[in-house]
Amino acid sequence: MAAQESSAYSALSVDTLTARLANLSAITRHVGQDTAAWKVREVGDGNLNLVFIVDGPSGSVIVKQALPYVRLVGDSWPLPLKRAFFEYNALTRQAQRDPHSVPDIYHFDESQALIVMEFLQPHIILRGKLIKGERVADLGDVLGKFCARTAFRGSDLSMDTTNKKEDVALFQGNADLCDISESLVFTDPYYDAERNHHTPQLDPVIASLRNDVELKTQAQHMLARFASNTETMCHGDLHTGSIMCTDVETKIIDPEFAFYGPIGFDLGMLVANFLMAYFSQPAHRAAGELEDYQNWVLQVIADLHASYIAEFTHLWNSERTGMLYPASMFKDQGHSSQGALEDRLAMIWEDAMGICGIEMHRRILSLAHNADFEAIEDTSVRAPLEARNLEMGRQLVLTRSDIKDVDALTALARSYNTKDIL
Amino acid sequence: MAAQESSAYSALSVDTLTARLANLSAITRHVGQDTAAWKVREVGDGNLNLVFIVDGPSGSVIVKQALPYVRLVGDSWPLPLKRAFFEYNALTRQAQRDPHSVPDIYHFDESQALIVMEFLQPHIILRGKLIKGERVADLGDVLGKFCARTAFRGSDLSMDTTNKKEDVALFQGNADLCDISESLVFTDPYYDAERNHHTPQLDPVIASLRNDVELKTQAQHMLARFASNTETMCHGDLHTGSIMCTDVETKIIDPEFAFYGPIGFDLGMLVANFLMAYFSQPAHRAAGELEDYQNWVLQVIADLHASYIAEFTHLWNSERTGMLYPASMFKDQGHSSQGALEDRLAMIWEDAMGICGIEMHRRILSLAHNADFEAIEDTSVRAPLEARNLEMGRQLVLTRSDIKDVDALTALARSYNTKDIL
Repeated sequence: MAAQESSAYSALSVDTLTARLANLSAITRHVGQDTAAWKVREVGDGNLNLVFIVDGPSGSVIVKQALPYVRLVGDSWPLPLKRAFFEYNALTRQAQRDPHSVPDIYHFDESQALIVMEFLQPHIILRGKLIKGERVADLGDVLGKFCARTAFRGSDLSMDTTNKKEDVALFQGNADLCDISESLVFTDPYYDAERNHHTPQLDPVIASLRNDVELKTQAQHMLARFASNTETMCHGDLHTGSIMCTDVETKIIDPEFAFYGPIGFDLGMLVANFLMAYFSQPAHRAAGELEDYQNWVLQVIADLHASYIAEFTHLWNSERTGMLYPASMFKDQGHSSQGALEDRLAMIWEDAMGICGIEMHRRILSLAHNADFEAIEDTSVRAPLEARNLEMGRQLVLTRSDIKDVDALTALARSYNTKDIL
Repeated sequence: MAAQESSAYSALSVDTLTARLANLSAITRHVGQDTAAWKVREVGDGNLNLVFIVDGPSGSVIVKQALPYVRLVGDSWPLPLKRAFFEYNALTRQAQRDPHSVPDIYHFDESQALIVMEFLQPHIILRGKLIKGERVADLGDVLGKFCARTAFRGSDLSMDTTNKKEDVALFQGNADLCDISESLVFTDPYYDAERNHHTPQLDPVIASLRNDVELKTQAQHMLARFASNTETMCHGDLHTGSIMCTDVETKIIDPEFAFYGPIGFDLGMLVANFLMAYFSQPAHRAAGELEDYQNWVLQVIADLHASYIAEFTHLWNSERTGMLYPASMFKDQGHSSQGALEDRLAMIWEDAMGICGIEMHRRILSLAHNADFEAIEDTSVRAPLEARNLEMGRQLVLTRSDIKDVDALTALARSYNTKDIL
């Protein structure tokens, strides 16, 4: 009877969670056996799922459960429960590939689409800290290492090729979440799609973007790479809302969009979200603090990039156990693979710049916007800042092969930050 | 009992085939019920499998069975029977995507790793015809259409993205045959690998190739694309030994290396094999016929390319039902996708040129050589021709983005054809 109950999916609620999960040692071990003392709160996670915090005498855990539809939209937009399976599989791989980067996982129930995991405390969502003007020590360094380690260790540079192909096959099953990215990120922003919305004052800029055939062509070239490139397992949704921080610690959450894709994908999306934090700051900071804080945000991007390059290079030289650029062809022949490394880093950066520009567009034009801009209530303040972000995004997509390094990128951001586009 | 016998794998032989397959309607339907009148011949297929022709009063069929090892090498090199499953799945997809391009399939028995298919008669292997100096009408045209149709209709330009991801996942299972390509095609040629062999007089040229770090780097960049790019289902082994022709008809066989890979892969490998036919001709033709026949071979390459471009363009304009470059973003907005098409054709051609150069190397340097050169018994005649082929291959790999079209390619071939490299 209990087993049957646990195998038929049923969404949890604040009222039913304690009774249904009372016997789950993954929870009692962390919060305590006395279920009468449990307190259950629903906190949501924004767009897709149910998320509860269970507090008890001994501690707290997170219970995250997928719903059979998109929470943001409702049951008119069904979405398979299987995404919890991919999130679980992504979390376990990320924990292996970059230890301590993600919450500890205590329990996974596939039929209930339910993950019990570590409650990160007193961490809050990074995006909130950036809007408030707070700093996080070592932020760029930690994120750069996470991107480099998960990228390298999930690729043919490191993995056995048969194991990697099995893993690629597994994650091809996450098609419905890939489909969301394929539509909302790469396609919808570039025409008047049904689910789009935007700040009205942007109309002339948006008309110009949507009439830019070369821009649309390049965005679709990037979609082709997203959909047909299985270089490594990407987080798939690595924005500042998928990162939780204290002032000194950084953790990555919510990899349900995980897929095998271009190595530069996570890096590019992450940089885009820092750039959006940067461009939105004039609405959140007083003049006296603004310049300093904007400089700090750009420094995070520079640190992220430097950390990424350093870690990727370190792994290239110490852990290149996959089939690519093997020792038999290079080191054993007294030949350097340094040129190959530099080529690959350049390809990764070019992909990242393309994805970065597209992410900067879709967060202003498509369904899911960012609080960085959305929290600016006065649209006459918001629109000119969004316009800078849109135009820089266009330049990145169109000239991604010319943005040679992070200094070129941050210089570009500074120049757009003073432009009056509207 | 009969069912049990059919489920435990056992290799067929000329002596056992009739008794074991006597009740198979897929055979009796084509060759006749009177098994006493069947004649069974083993013809082999070169490197990997058992191939039998069963002749009977009503006709003939081919029975192809995988062995649990590489036939060319023996049981010291095990290879999974599952490859028959992938060959069957590839054949059925090719038949859908380019009707009448492959033999009709009459029966597939997964546990016996056995495919019964149409006996193509009086077709012979194209490579043999090229060595003999025979011509095939419409050869380039048919092959160009095959490459374009299977490429386009197996990609996100055409397929529903969820179906395509399922298919990509399925073919990731063909890892062992991909592993053969990954080693023998992209890696072994570029160092002194155990299974390699070559014509002794080539030593100085080969030393120069294997000391060319940039060449090795580019070859491995192409391997990275081979292993992590799932644009379309490729035949995977499309050389002139996988093509059977009469003087007027062309069919494609043996897709057991099928995988989802770069769109340009099949095109590049095919062009390479025509170039090897071209470079080897001086050893096979008398002076009076040589120039004419070499011109014809280059014309086949030109036809192949023209046919490919025309067919791909036709499908782009008439069947672009996949998620890429959708009408909603282009046609419905009054915007042309012609630029996107031209970009994609350029990317395909660049990949094809890289693969072409690598295939020209591996057939001289790695395990599996081509009869075009191997049939030249006098190594002092063979080596200078192989040297031209190797050096042109190097130029293609290194400058693949500069070979803008097929005229540039055939002009390059003509120039190498008169070079004295050894």
